[in-house]
Amino acid sequence: MTSITGTRPGGRSARIQQAVHDATKELLAAVGRDELTIPAIATRAGVNPTTIYRRWGDLAALLSDVAADRFRQADPPVETGSLERDLTTWSEQFLEEMGSGPGRSYIAEVLAGDSTGDNAGICARYAAEAISTIVQRFPHLGPPKVDEVLDHVVAPILYRILFTSERPATGYPTSLVARLLSGAAPR
Amino acid sequence: MTSITGTRPGGRSARIQQAVHDATKELLAAVGRDELTIPAIATRAGVNPTTIYRRWGDLAALLSDVAADRFRQADPPVETGSLERDLTTWSEQFLEEMGSGPGRSYIAEVLAGDSTGDNAGICARYAAEAISTIVQRFPHLGPPKVDEVLDHVVAPILYRILFTSERPATGYPTSLVARLLSGAAPR
Repeated sequence: MTSITGTRPGGRSARIQQAVHDATKELLAAVGRDELTIPAIATRAGVNPTTIYRRWGDLAALLSDVAADRFRQADPPVETGSLERDLTTWSEQFLEEMGSGPGRSYIAEVLAGDSTGDNAGICARYAAEAISTIVQRFPHLGPPKVDEVLDHVVAPILYRILFTSERPATGYPTSLVARLLSGAAPR
Repeated sequence: MTSITGTRPGGRSARIQQAVHDATKELLAAVGRDELTIPAIATRAGVNPTTIYRRWGDLAALLSDVAADRFRQADPPVETGSLERDLTTWSEQFLEEMGSGPGRSYIAEVLAGDSTGDNAGICARYAAEAISTIVQRFPHLGPPKVDEVLDHVVAPILYRILFTSERPATGYPTSLVARLLSGAAPR
Protein backbone atom coordinates (compact mmCIF):
# COMPACT_ATOMS: atom_id res chain seq x y z
CA MET A 1 0.00 0.00 0.00
CA THR A 2 2.76 2.38 -0.84
CA SER A 3 2.27 5.15 -3.29
CA ILE A 4 5.82 6.41 -3.45
CA THR A 5 6.99 4.95 -6.73
CA GLY A 6 3.68 5.51 -8.49
CA THR A 7 2.80 9.03 -7.54
CA ARG A 8 5.81 11.03 -6.45
CA PRO A 9 6.84 12.60 -9.74
CA GLY A 10 5.20 16.03 -10.18
CA GLY A 11 1.67 17.20 -10.72
CA ARG A 12 -1.46 17.27 -8.64
CA SER A 13 -0.93 13.79 -7.29
CA ALA A 14 2.48 14.73 -5.90
CA ARG A 15 1.09 17.92 -4.35
CA ILE A 16 -1.63 15.95 -2.58
CA GLN A 17 0.91 13.45 -1.32
CA GLN A 18 3.11 16.26 0.00
CA ALA A 19 0.18 18.00 1.70
CA VAL A 20 -0.99 14.79 3.36
CA HIS A 21 2.53 13.87 4.49
CA ASP A 22 3.08 17.36 5.93
CA ALA A 23 -0.28 17.36 7.70
CA THR A 24 0.48 13.93 9.18
CA LYS A 25 3.86 15.02 10.50
CA GLU A 26 2.44 18.24 11.95
CA LEU A 27 -0.44 16.47 13.68
CA LEU A 28 1.85 13.72 14.96
CA ALA A 29 3.96 16.40 16.59
CA ALA A 30 0.94 18.35 17.86
CA VAL A 31 -1.44 15.69 19.17
CA GLY A 32 0.54 12.45 19.08
CA ARG A 33 -0.22 9.17 17.42
CA ASP A 34 -3.06 8.05 19.68
CA GLU A 35 -5.20 11.07 18.80
CA LEU A 36 -4.42 10.97 15.10
CA THR A 37 -7.31 10.32 12.69
CA ILE A 38 -7.63 10.35 8.93
CA PRO A 39 -10.43 12.99 8.97
CA ALA A 40 -8.21 15.32 11.03
CA ILE A 41 -5.32 14.82 8.62
CA ALA A 42 -7.62 15.45 5.66
CA THR A 43 -8.91 18.71 7.15
CA ARG A 44 -5.41 19.98 7.81
CA ALA A 45 -4.17 18.95 4.37
CA GLY A 46 -7.22 20.48 2.67
CA VAL A 47 -8.23 17.27 0.93
CA ASN A 48 -11.25 15.01 1.12
CA PRO A 49 -10.88 12.07 3.56
CA THR A 50 -11.90 9.68 0.77
CA THR A 51 -8.81 10.79 -1.16
CA ILE A 52 -6.68 9.52 1.71
CA TYR A 53 -8.62 6.29 2.13
CA ARG A 54 -8.42 5.63 -1.59
CA ARG A 55 -4.72 6.25 -1.84
CA TRP A 56 -3.44 4.77 1.43
CA GLY A 57 -6.20 2.45 2.63
CA ASP A 58 -5.81 3.05 6.34
CA LEU A 59 -3.95 5.09 8.94
CA ALA A 60 -1.28 2.44 9.57
CA ALA A 61 -0.38 2.35 5.87
CA LEU A 62 -0.23 6.17 5.71
CA LEU A 63 2.00 6.30 8.81
CA SER A 64 4.25 3.64 7.32
CA ASP A 65 4.54 5.68 4.13
CA VAL A 66 5.35 8.89 6.02
CA ALA A 67 7.92 7.08 8.17
CA ALA A 68 9.59 5.52 5.12
CA ASP A 69 9.92 8.98 3.63
CA ARG A 70 11.95 10.15 6.62
CA PHE A 71 14.65 7.66 5.66
CA ARG A 72 15.28 9.40 2.38
CA GLN A 73 18.72 10.95 2.36
CA ALA A 74 18.81 14.30 0.69
CA ASP A 75 22.56 14.57 0.30
CA PRO A 76 25.04 12.15 -1.27
CA PRO A 77 27.39 10.48 1.24
CA VAL A 78 30.33 12.60 2.40
CA GLU A 79 33.41 12.21 0.18
CA THR A 80 36.72 11.92 2.06
CA GLY A 81 38.96 10.42 -0.61
CA SER A 82 39.19 7.10 1.29
CA LEU A 83 36.89 4.08 0.91
CA GLU A 84 37.17 3.19 4.58
CA ARG A 85 36.53 6.74 5.76
CA ASP A 86 33.57 7.20 3.39
CA LEU A 87 31.95 4.00 4.69
CA THR A 88 32.79 4.81 8.30
CA THR A 89 31.40 8.34 8.08
CA TRP A 90 28.20 7.19 6.41
CA SER A 91 27.61 4.30 8.83
CA GLU A 92 28.26 6.40 11.95
CA GLN A 93 25.71 8.93 10.62
CA PHE A 94 23.29 6.11 9.89
CA LEU A 95 23.56 4.93 13.50
CA GLU A 96 23.07 8.47 14.74
CA GLU A 97 19.92 8.98 12.67
CA MET A 98 18.36 5.56 13.19
CA GLY A 99 19.44 5.02 16.79
CA SER A 100 17.69 8.05 18.22
CA GLY A 101 14.28 7.61 19.87
CA PRO A 102 12.28 8.83 16.86
CA GLY A 103 14.49 6.82 14.48
CA ARG A 104 13.62 3.58 16.24
CA SER A 105 9.90 4.35 16.25
CA TYR A 106 9.96 5.36 12.57
CA ILE A 107 11.38 1.93 11.79
CA ALA A 108 8.68 0.26 13.91
CA GLU A 109 6.00 2.29 12.11
CA VAL A 110 7.38 1.43 8.70
CA LEU A 111 7.21 -2.27 9.56
CA ALA A 112 3.85 -2.16 11.34
CA GLY A 113 1.76 -0.64 8.54
CA ASP A 114 3.49 -2.50 5.81
CA SER A 115 2.10 -5.96 5.23
CA THR A 116 3.66 -6.18 1.77
CA GLY A 117 7.16 -5.09 2.77
CA ASP A 118 7.12 -2.29 0.17
CA ASN A 119 7.91 0.57 2.52
CA ALA A 120 10.58 -1.38 4.37
CA GLY A 121 12.07 -2.13 0.98
CA ILE A 122 12.17 1.59 0.21
CA CYS A 123 14.09 2.26 3.43
CA ALA A 124 16.53 -0.48 2.52
CA ARG A 125 16.92 0.96 -0.96
CA TYR A 126 17.93 4.37 0.40
CA ALA A 127 20.74 2.70 2.36
CA ALA A 128 21.77 0.56 -0.62
CA GLU A 129 21.91 3.64 -2.86
CA ALA A 130 24.22 5.49 -0.49
CA ILE A 131 26.53 2.49 -0.20
CA SER A 132 26.50 1.97 -3.94
CA THR A 133 27.52 5.60 -4.47
CA ILE A 134 30.46 5.11 -2.11
CA VAL A 135 31.82 1.83 -3.49
CA GLN A 136 31.56 3.14 -7.07
CA ARG A 137 34.04 5.86 -6.15
CA PHE A 138 36.74 3.21 -5.63
CA PRO A 139 36.46 0.61 -8.42
CA HIS A 140 40.27 0.17 -8.45
CA LEU A 141 40.25 -1.04 -4.84
CA GLY A 142 37.99 -4.04 -5.48
CA PRO A 143 35.50 -2.67 -2.95
CA PRO A 144 33.03 -4.92 -1.12
CA LYS A 145 29.72 -5.62 -2.83
CA VAL A 146 26.75 -3.52 -1.72
CA ASP A 147 25.08 -6.66 -0.31
CA GLU A 148 28.11 -7.40 1.83
CA VAL A 149 27.99 -3.92 3.35
CA LEU A 150 24.25 -4.33 3.96
CA ASP A 151 24.73 -7.75 5.60
CA HIS A 152 27.76 -6.98 7.73
CA VAL A 153 27.52 -3.25 8.54
CA VAL A 154 23.92 -2.03 8.09
CA ALA A 155 22.21 -5.21 9.37
CA PRO A 156 24.15 -5.44 12.68
CA ILE A 157 23.53 -1.73 13.35
CA LEU A 158 19.78 -2.09 12.77
CA TYR A 159 19.68 -5.34 14.75
CA ARG A 160 21.17 -3.66 17.78
CA ILE A 161 18.91 -0.62 17.46
CA LEU A 162 15.76 -2.71 17.14
CA PHE A 163 16.42 -5.72 19.34
CA THR A 164 18.62 -4.58 22.18
CA SER A 165 17.60 -1.93 24.65
CA GLU A 166 21.02 -0.30 24.63
CA ARG A 167 21.84 1.87 21.66
CA PRO A 168 25.14 0.73 20.17
CA ALA A 169 28.11 2.96 20.97
CA THR A 170 29.62 5.44 18.57
CA GLY A 171 32.59 3.62 17.05
CA TYR A 172 30.68 0.35 16.65
CA PRO A 173 29.93 1.05 12.96
CA THR A 174 33.60 1.95 12.49
CA SER A 175 34.66 -1.44 13.83
CA LEU A 176 32.18 -3.23 11.55
CA VAL A 177 33.58 -1.40 8.51
CA ALA A 178 37.16 -2.19 9.55
CA ARG A 179 36.29 -5.85 9.98
CA LEU A 180 34.63 -6.02 6.57
CA LEU A 181 37.48 -4.26 4.76
CA SER A 182 40.19 -6.28 6.47
CA GLY A 183 38.61 -9.30 4.79
CA ALA A 184 39.18 -11.24 7.96
CA ALA A 185 37.08 -11.84 11.01
CA PRO A 186 39.23 -10.67 13.93
CA ARG A 187 38.62 -13.09 16.76
CA MET B 1 5.41 -2.57 29.25
CA THR B 2 6.36 -6.20 29.33
CA SER B 3 5.34 -8.49 32.10
CA ILE B 4 7.37 -11.51 31.15
CA THR B 5 10.23 -11.31 33.57
CA GLY B 6 8.08 -10.15 36.47
CA THR B 7 5.13 -12.45 36.36
CA ARG B 8 5.86 -15.62 34.45
CA PRO B 9 6.97 -17.89 37.27
CA GLY B 10 4.07 -19.87 38.76
CA GLY B 11 0.98 -18.94 40.71
CA ARG B 12 -2.16 -17.02 39.95
CA SER B 13 -0.34 -14.29 38.07
CA ALA B 14 1.15 -16.82 35.66
CA ARG B 15 -2.21 -18.49 35.14
CA ILE B 16 -3.81 -15.16 34.24
CA GLN B 17 -0.99 -14.39 31.85
CA GLN B 18 -1.39 -17.76 30.18
CA ALA B 19 -5.17 -17.38 29.90
CA VAL B 20 -4.87 -13.89 28.39
CA HIS B 21 -2.16 -14.97 25.96
CA ASP B 22 -4.22 -17.99 24.86
CA ALA B 23 -7.37 -15.91 24.45
CA THR B 24 -5.45 -13.34 22.41
CA LYS B 25 -4.02 -15.97 20.07
CA GLU B 26 -7.40 -17.67 19.64
CA LEU B 27 -9.18 -14.41 18.86
CA LEU B 28 -6.42 -13.29 16.52
CA ALA B 29 -6.93 -16.49 14.55
CA ALA B 30 -10.73 -16.26 14.73
CA VAL B 31 -11.51 -12.58 14.08
CA GLY B 32 -8.18 -11.05 13.04
CA ARG B 33 -6.31 -8.11 14.44
CA ASP B 34 -8.65 -5.35 13.27
CA GLU B 35 -11.60 -6.73 15.21
CA LEU B 36 -9.61 -7.50 18.34
CA THR B 37 -10.51 -5.63 21.53
CA ILE B 38 -9.39 -5.90 25.13
CA PRO B 39 -12.96 -6.48 26.44
CA ALA B 40 -13.36 -9.42 24.01
CA ILE B 41 -10.03 -10.89 25.10
CA ALA B 42 -11.01 -10.45 28.76
CA THR B 43 -14.32 -12.24 28.24
CA ARG B 44 -12.68 -15.17 26.51
CA ALA B 45 -9.92 -15.39 29.12
CA GLY B 46 -12.42 -15.15 31.99
CA VAL B 47 -10.73 -12.15 33.58
CA ASN B 48 -11.79 -8.58 34.23
CA PRO B 49 -10.77 -6.09 31.49
CA THR B 50 -9.17 -3.88 34.15
CA THR B 51 -6.78 -6.74 34.93
CA ILE B 52 -5.55 -6.56 31.35
CA TYR B 53 -5.34 -2.76 31.28
CA ARG B 54 -3.46 -2.76 34.57
CA ARG B 55 -0.95 -5.37 33.51
CA TRP B 56 -0.38 -4.51 29.86
CA GLY B 57 -1.60 -0.92 29.47
CA ASP B 58 -3.02 -1.21 25.97
CA LEU B 59 -3.72 -3.62 23.15
CA ALA B 60 -0.49 -2.87 21.28
CA ALA B 61 1.58 -3.74 24.35
CA LEU B 62 -0.37 -6.98 24.91
CA LEU B 63 0.07 -7.98 21.26
CA SER B 64 3.77 -7.21 21.48
CA ASP B 65 4.03 -9.42 24.58
CA VAL B 66 2.14 -12.29 22.92
CA ALA B 67 4.26 -12.00 19.77
CA ALA B 68 7.50 -12.02 21.79
CA ASP B 69 6.36 -15.22 23.46
CA ARG B 70 6.11 -16.96 20.09
CA PHE B 71 9.85 -16.56 19.68
CA ARG B 72 10.56 -18.70 22.70
CA GLN B 73 12.24 -21.91 21.63
CA ALA B 74 11.02 -24.90 23.53
CA ASP B 75 13.83 -27.27 22.56
CA PRO B 76 17.58 -26.86 22.82
CA PRO B 77 19.33 -26.53 19.44
CA VAL B 78 19.91 -29.77 17.54
CA GLU B 79 23.22 -31.45 18.42
CA THR B 80 25.15 -32.82 15.46
CA GLY B 81 28.65 -33.18 16.91
CA SER B 82 29.98 -30.36 14.70
CA LEU B 83 30.09 -26.64 15.54
CA GLU B 84 29.46 -25.63 11.94
CA ARG B 85 26.57 -28.05 11.49
CA ASP B 86 24.98 -27.05 14.82
CA LEU B 87 25.09 -23.36 13.83
CA THR B 88 23.95 -24.08 10.29
CA THR B 89 21.02 -26.23 11.40
CA TRP B 90 19.90 -23.67 13.98
CA SER B 91 20.18 -20.70 11.62
CA GLU B 92 18.34 -22.41 8.75
CA GLN B 93 15.53 -23.22 11.22
CA PHE B 94 15.58 -19.64 12.43
CA LEU B 95 15.11 -18.39 8.86
CA GLU B 96 12.31 -20.87 8.31
CA GLU B 97 10.44 -19.78 11.44
CA MET B 98 11.00 -16.03 11.12
CA GLY B 99 10.79 -15.78 7.35
CA SER B 100 7.28 -17.12 7.00
CA GLY B 101 4.38 -14.65 6.70
CA PRO B 102 3.33 -14.91 10.35
CA GLY B 103 6.96 -14.75 11.51
CA ARG B 104 7.47 -11.38 9.81
CA SER B 105 4.26 -9.95 11.25
CA TYR B 106 5.12 -11.23 14.75
CA ILE B 107 8.36 -9.29 14.54
CA ALA B 108 6.51 -6.18 13.37
CA GLU B 109 4.04 -6.57 16.26
CA VAL B 110 6.81 -7.02 18.80
CA LEU B 111 8.43 -3.79 17.64
CA ALA B 112 5.21 -1.80 17.23
CA GLY B 113 3.85 -2.17 20.76
CA ASP B 114 7.19 -1.94 22.43
CA SER B 115 8.27 1.61 23.06
CA THR B 116 10.84 0.51 25.65
CA GLY B 117 12.44 -2.23 23.55
CA ASP B 118 11.84 -4.79 26.31
CA ASN B 119 9.97 -7.31 24.20
CA ALA B 120 12.34 -7.00 21.28
CA GLY B 121 15.11 -7.62 23.81
CA ILE B 122 13.40 -10.81 24.92
CA CYS B 123 13.27 -12.07 21.32
CA ALA B 124 16.95 -11.29 20.93
CA ARG B 125 17.71 -13.09 24.19
CA TYR B 126 16.06 -16.29 22.97
CA ALA B 127 18.34 -16.27 19.92
CA ALA B 128 21.39 -15.45 22.05
CA GLU B 129 20.60 -18.32 24.43
CA ALA B 130 20.40 -20.86 21.62
CA ILE B 131 23.70 -19.65 20.15
CA SER B 132 25.34 -19.63 23.55
CA THR B 133 24.26 -23.25 24.09
CA ILE B 134 25.84 -24.22 20.78
CA VAL B 135 29.20 -22.47 21.18
CA GLN B 136 29.58 -23.82 24.73
CA ARG B 137 29.57 -27.33 23.30
CA PHE B 138 32.87 -26.60 21.52
CA PRO B 139 35.13 -24.64 23.88
CA HIS B 140 38.23 -26.42 22.48
CA LEU B 141 37.56 -25.00 19.00
CA GLY B 142 37.80 -21.35 20.05
CA PRO B 143 34.25 -20.78 18.80
CA PRO B 144 33.01 -17.33 17.75
CA LYS B 145 31.57 -15.10 20.45
CA VAL B 146 27.78 -15.02 20.76
CA ASP B 147 27.78 -11.35 19.70
CA GLU B 148 29.67 -12.19 16.52
CA VAL B 149 27.07 -14.79 15.57
CA LEU B 150 24.29 -12.30 16.32
CA ASP B 151 25.96 -9.57 14.23
CA HIS B 152 27.01 -11.65 11.24
CA VAL B 153 24.45 -14.48 11.04
CA VAL B 154 21.26 -13.51 12.90
CA ALA B 155 21.28 -9.79 11.98
CA PRO B 156 21.65 -10.31 8.20
CA ILE B 157 18.87 -12.93 8.24
CA LEU B 158 16.50 -10.59 10.09
CA TYR B 159 17.51 -7.63 7.93
CA ARG B 160 16.58 -9.50 4.78
CA ILE B 161 13.31 -10.76 6.25
CA LEU B 162 12.26 -7.32 7.46
CA PHE B 163 13.63 -4.96 4.84
CA THR B 164 13.60 -6.80 1.54
CA SER B 165 10.46 -8.11 -0.06
CA GLU B 166 12.10 -11.35 -1.11
CA ARG B 167 12.57 -13.95 1.58
CA PRO B 168 16.21 -15.05 1.63
CA ALA B 169 16.85 -18.44 0.07
CA THR B 170 17.47 -21.61 2.02
CA GLY B 171 21.25 -21.95 2.14
CA TYR B 172 21.81 -18.25 2.81
CA PRO B 173 22.22 -18.85 6.59
CA THR B 174 24.62 -21.71 5.80
CA SER B 175 26.80 -19.35 3.76
CA LEU B 176 26.80 -16.76 6.56
CA VAL B 177 27.93 -19.41 9.07
CA ALA B 178 30.66 -20.64 6.71
CA ARG B 179 31.89 -17.10 6.19
CA LEU B 180 32.00 -16.43 9.94
CA LEU B 181 33.80 -19.68 10.76
CA SER B 182 36.32 -19.33 7.96
CA GLY B 183 37.44 -16.16 9.71
CA ALA B 184 37.77 -14.52 6.33
CA ALA B 185 35.44 -12.51 4.20
CA PRO B 186 35.34 -14.32 0.86
CA ARG B 187 35.15 -11.66 -1.80
